Amino acid sequence: MSINSIFSPLKPKENKFFPMINNIGDLLAKAAKQQAELIKKSSFEEMEEDYKIIKECETQSDTEIAKIYEELNKSFITPFDREDIHSLCETVDDTLDFINSTSKRILLFRPKQIPEISVRMTEIISECCNAINISLHELKTVNKKPETALKQCELLHDLEQEADEIYENFVKKLFEEETDTKEIIKNKEIVQHMERTTDMAKHVGKIIKTIIVKYA
Amino acid sequence: MSINSIFSPLKPKENKFFPMINNIGDLLAKAAKQQAELIKKSSFEEMEEDYKIIKECETQSDTEIAKIYEELNKSFITPFDREDIHSLCETVDDTLDFINSTSKRILLFRPKQIPEISVRMTEIISECCNAINISLHELKTVNKKPETALKQCELLHDLEQEADEIYENFVKKLFEEETDTKEIIKNKEIVQHMERTTDMAKHVGKIIKTIIVKYA
Amino acid sequence: MSINSIFSPLKPKENKFFPMINNIGDLLAKAAKQQAELIKKSSFEEMEEDYKIIKECETQSDTEIAKIYEELNKSFITPFDREDIHSLCETVDDTLDFINSTSKRILLFRPKQIPEISVRMTEIISECCNAINISLHELKTVNKKPETALKQCELLHDLEQEADEIYENFVKKLFEEETDTKEIIKNKEIVQHMERTTDMAKHVGKIIKTIIVKYA
Repeated sequence: MSINSIFSPLKPKENKFFPMINNIGDLLAKAAKQQAELIKKSSFEEMEEDYKIIKECETQSDTEIAKIYEELNKSFITPFDREDIHSLCETVDDTLDFINSTSKRILLFRPKQIPEISVRMTEIISECCNAINISLHELKTVNKKPETALKQCELLHDLEQEADEIYENFVKKLFEEETDTKEIIKNKEIVQHMERTTDMAKHVGKIIKTIIVKYA
Repeated sequence: MSINSIFSPLKPKENKFFPMINNIGDLLAKAAKQQAELIKKSSFEEMEEDYKIIKECETQSDTEIAKIYEELNKSFITPFDREDIHSLCETVDDTLDFINSTSKRILLFRPKQIPEISVRMTEIISECCNAINISLHELKTVNKKPETALKQCELLHDLEQEADEIYENFVKKLFEEETDTKEIIKNKEIVQHMERTTDMAKHVGKIIKTIIVKYA
Repeated sequence: MSINSIFSPLKPKENKFFPMINNIGDLLAKAAKQQAELIKKSSFEEMEEDYKIIKECETQSDTEIAKIYEELNKSFITPFDREDIHSLCETVDDTLDFINSTSKRILLFRPKQIPEISVRMTEIISECCNAINISLHELKTVNKKPETALKQCELLHDLEQEADEIYENFVKKLFEEETDTKEIIKNKEIVQHMERTTDMAKHVGKIIKTIIVKYA
């Protein structure tokens, strides 16, 4: 009897993690896409419909993370160190939390005018979340073939820089053109929250890069 | 001579860490409770008395962390990896730092009216810090019996969500009702600082969960 | 043939990391020093010249980090765990990013008056970055002689506390004396960004302390 056949019953257990991790990637990408839809709506009432879907993604992601955690505690063999899977999933979840709270802030603060730049910002966030999703789907083979995931991490870095630039120029213009200070505070906070979402997404990229370098 | 008797002189050294970690948990819980008292006082002068105690907790916690660090560098055998004990203690200390700087901001900014919602917010923070304190006291046996600590981590997650909701609704109301922009900025910053304290507390919960999954 | 001579071809590879890490330390210290110069200039036009140098440091640091990452993935033997070198470098780079975005904000927001306190704040940041740079240059021998690096980490802790105190008192005064709310928001954000730079520098100190405790 070979070593392989002894361990074979464990194999399906090992692979249990990847579909679960893919699920949270899918939920993240879905929420980000919905936020890019929300921002284009012409009334807060219509936005409420998009927000419901985003909130649902957030709740489902929480459930999924709890399941992964439970599985990690039960499993003897995991594809990466258990603490690395846990950290990665938590940071993906943090990114989704940011999307959720940005959308919620828009609905709560009800700024007189949604800053035009939000359209591009939510697109960038959606691109970031797609990049994360692709990387998560690559995890299974990342130690042998890290190129695709690494390319997405590069993309996350570049998108964050673009978002940062947009945010800074937006605030500059806001100070120059807006006279209502309340509107300045509201819109600054909303767009800053978008920028922080890309920060968190870049942070996910760094964790993926750390995992790659650790298991290379 | 058995292996156990050879290593027995090391045993008390191992256990040295737990009382030290418990100390920083106690200081955190004490500072949080004091902040919940401070917020109910009717004058800034009375608040100063509570703040002194909070500041004292913060200074003592710094000393305690330094002692733990020194001990970590001397000890050959530690209950968990040395870097995990260090990270955990530093994040507990960061939570205490947030309590300290929130209280200090209130005394420095002297808002015309302390937001009513602060009473519930400081209670939530105190509940968070009790949850952390309970978890820290459970660390010694956490690899065998993680249930109590895990329940507190769940609680930290839920309390943070409650604080987040309260903060968002508070800012919404602030924009609707407050006309003095300076007061908006002051009160927004104070309550946001409280919300960030619960973020940091939730982060402590994540580190504890990571330790549990690592040593399970 | 001794073990040493077998492995000797690897030795220069091992030591490749230290000059690279020293480079990012040097770039950080240079950018911080330049920011302390920028702040003393009497016109935004003159400041632009300093900013160009800061931006250049930031770009070079990005290139350097990418080279270190590539090297980490190629090297079999590294002086510390690969993931620790990666985390450390990324956080040093985050500190440089903060310096860059603070200076950029000054040039974009163009506050009517640069807060006087900025001179001391940028000096503190420069002291922080020198402390980081010294620690990074000590890394090579840190497991045998950690005293110098540890002293710099202490200094980072103390400088952050000083910056925090200055920031809080600055905001207090700003609320009391400034009547233009836009100027309050602008200057608060600029000085807060300086304070956060020292937070990030302190975080680098914590990572260095964690590395010391891990390899002690």
